[in-house]
Amino acid sequence: MKVHNFSAGPSILPKEVMHQAAEAVKELDGSGLSLIEISHRSKAFIDIMKEACALALELTGLKDKGYKAIFLQGGASQQFLMAAYNLLENKAGYVNTGTWSNKAIKEAKLFGEVIELASSKEENFNYIPKGYSIPSDLDYVHLTTNNTIFGTQLKETPTTEVPLAADMSSDIFSREFDYSKFDLFYAGAQKNMGPAGATLVLIKEDLFGKVSRAIPSMLNYKTHADAGSMFNTPPVFAVYTSMLNMQWIKSQGGVKALGEKNMVKATLLYGEIDRNSKFVGFAAKEDRSEMNATFNLVNPNDAEAFDGLCQAAGISGLKGHRSVGGYRASMYNAMPINSVEILVDCMQTLEEKY
Amino acid sequence: MKVHNFSAGPSILPKEVMHQAAEAVKELDGSGLSLIEISHRSKAFIDIMKEACALALELTGLKDKGYKAIFLQGGASQQFLMAAYNLLENKAGYVNTGTWSNKAIKEAKLFGEVIELASSKEENFNYIPKGYSIPSDLDYVHLTTNNTIFGTQLKETPTTEVPLAADMSSDIFSREFDYSKFDLFYAGAQKNMGPAGATLVLIKEDLFGKVSRAIPSMLNYKTHADAGSMFNTPPVFAVYTSMLNMQWIKSQGGVKALGEKNMVKATLLYGEIDRNSKFVGFAAKEDRSEMNATFNLVNPNDAEAFDGLCQAAGISGLKGHRSVGGYRASMYNAMPINSVEILVDCMQTLEEKY
Repeated sequence: MKVHNFSAGPSILPKEVMHQAAEAVKELDGSGLSLIEISHRSKAFIDIMKEACALALELTGLKDKGYKAIFLQGGASQQFLMAAYNLLENKAGYVNTGTWSNKAIKEAKLFGEVIELASSKEENFNYIPKGYSIPSDLDYVHLTTNNTIFGTQLKETPTTEVPLAADMSSDIFSREFDYSKFDLFYAGAQKNMGPAGATLVLIKEDLFGKVSRAIPSMLNYKTHADAGSMFNTPPVFAVYTSMLNMQWIKSQGGVKALGEKNMVKATLLYGEIDRNSKFVGFAAKEDRSEMNATFNLVNPNDAEAFDGLCQAAGISGLKGHRSVGGYRASMYNAMPINSVEILVDCMQTLEEKY
Repeated sequence: MKVHNFSAGPSILPKEVMHQAAEAVKELDGSGLSLIEISHRSKAFIDIMKEACALALELTGLKDKGYKAIFLQGGASQQFLMAAYNLLENKAGYVNTGTWSNKAIKEAKLFGEVIELASSKEENFNYIPKGYSIPSDLDYVHLTTNNTIFGTQLKETPTTEVPLAADMSSDIFSREFDYSKFDLFYAGAQKNMGPAGATLVLIKEDLFGKVSRAIPSMLNYKTHADAGSMFNTPPVFAVYTSMLNMQWIKSQGGVKALGEKNMVKATLLYGEIDRNSKFVGFAAKEDRSEMNATFNLVNPNDAEAFDGLCQAAGISGLKGHRSVGGYRASMYNAMPINSVEILVDCMQTLEEKY
């Protein structure tokens, strides 16, 4: 039976990307060697890394705009501390939009003063704060563009002279977006970029050397930028598969075309959530994420019936995070609209039959 | 043509491991989903991580001996700073046996006083220092058990009451060894453990909380030990493939049986290096690595002929590191003796015909 994979991450990737990645693990391009047994200093892998970095700049429209694309390890969790290690000299502002922002704030506090510019905590993070003021003396402002757990997404980037940093782990490459407003942004690969194990960082070159503290080599963005992401052995498989996936994104028409498809999928699902008397959406309508739709049953007693319908339809990974409960449908780039239609069918069947 | 992969790392892995890994990227155990698109919180992946950790403890003989096995990211390079971040309160001793020790020393100096207990730098690191004294007031002593670049290997572990820490990236799981003498040891996966992108750390639980500084969550060994290596999304593919490879090691009879095979391969190659008038070994005989044999041509003018013979025989990855020059034959666990025999044939042909 076909599985419809709504997992929040690690998550669905295009079938052809997974197939190509598997073939490369057997043998890379007729070389007689597996992707995972060649030296990362070989021409074959250096070319892969260069293409991955170039594609990241191209897809975000940041080619020749003074940015470096670097591939690291450790996911967004490691970026929480690296951003502060590299940029927090005195004071930084953080917008608290949920679990991941919270973790970023916690790590940053080890390195300097952290001001919570705004928070939606009092409403269990079901909206994105807006209209807060940003003091001009901050080293940077940190945002989370998409909140996987709560299903909210930043639609409008705040205007400020202060450098903007963002965790874009769960919505990078998913929509047309002015990435040039951000001086630093990063993403764990395991949503729209590739498999778990690689982290993409895009950073404006003028952010290097901003703090007076000594930074360990591995935690210094400049180390990795100068070394072309090859300061030490990179996560070969995750970088290669990310490269394949970025090639796929490009072949689909880039982030603009995928953004339009993602909008159609999200509109379909949110339309049903709002129409169907059995369900209620969690996030504020204007802040709804196109990547992760969070919703609950009006009557929790319907859970057994709905879960049964979903299971019979091959729907996987729909369970909501414990912070919100209910359901979460993650609809990343690789998810076909057909999978969303099947979920909507299950929702309609529940309403009709129960 | 069959390729004989002598690459120093990322390096050869067993064919069946690479095949199984590739199949799992297509579909994991008949689940209808790829290994790389399932949640790391799924039962399937939690079981994989548990088995990987259990196998690491079993293969090193450290089960039920107060150690935690944890899987991290960032390779040995990240461990250079993590070891010091977690353990260096006042003063640590490092034995300098080459490039990687040097890097470990550089990072540690950011966190406290570092004493170079011994060094073989004056002989371009062609031997392992012995008989140095270890002050009792050190927080720990750091060793590198195998030096990939120079082809030397620690044969005898120093005796001391001070906790021992070691970088075992290039010889973990390769020989019978008393791992219990070490309180902390780590290995980047990309030699004998699995593909690049995972790092194994084994740490005695009584080393947690040894320093007064605040440690960022991601850099704190205790964070990861407490969370069963699932504090954040782990590098799924690299952990899975490491698990497969550790299963393979166990199926071969464990580190003792593999150590015997590795000794046979190393004896064959070093025997030829010593016998053949065209070649000279680099490392001191008593410190020769069973993993990486470094050797040079007596007459550099023979390079073209020897390189041609190697190429014609399908030998790959034999070029020495620039710090040593000449040749380096890495003979990790997965290398069949046949590949070493073919290299020896090329060496003999060079002597006979040129």
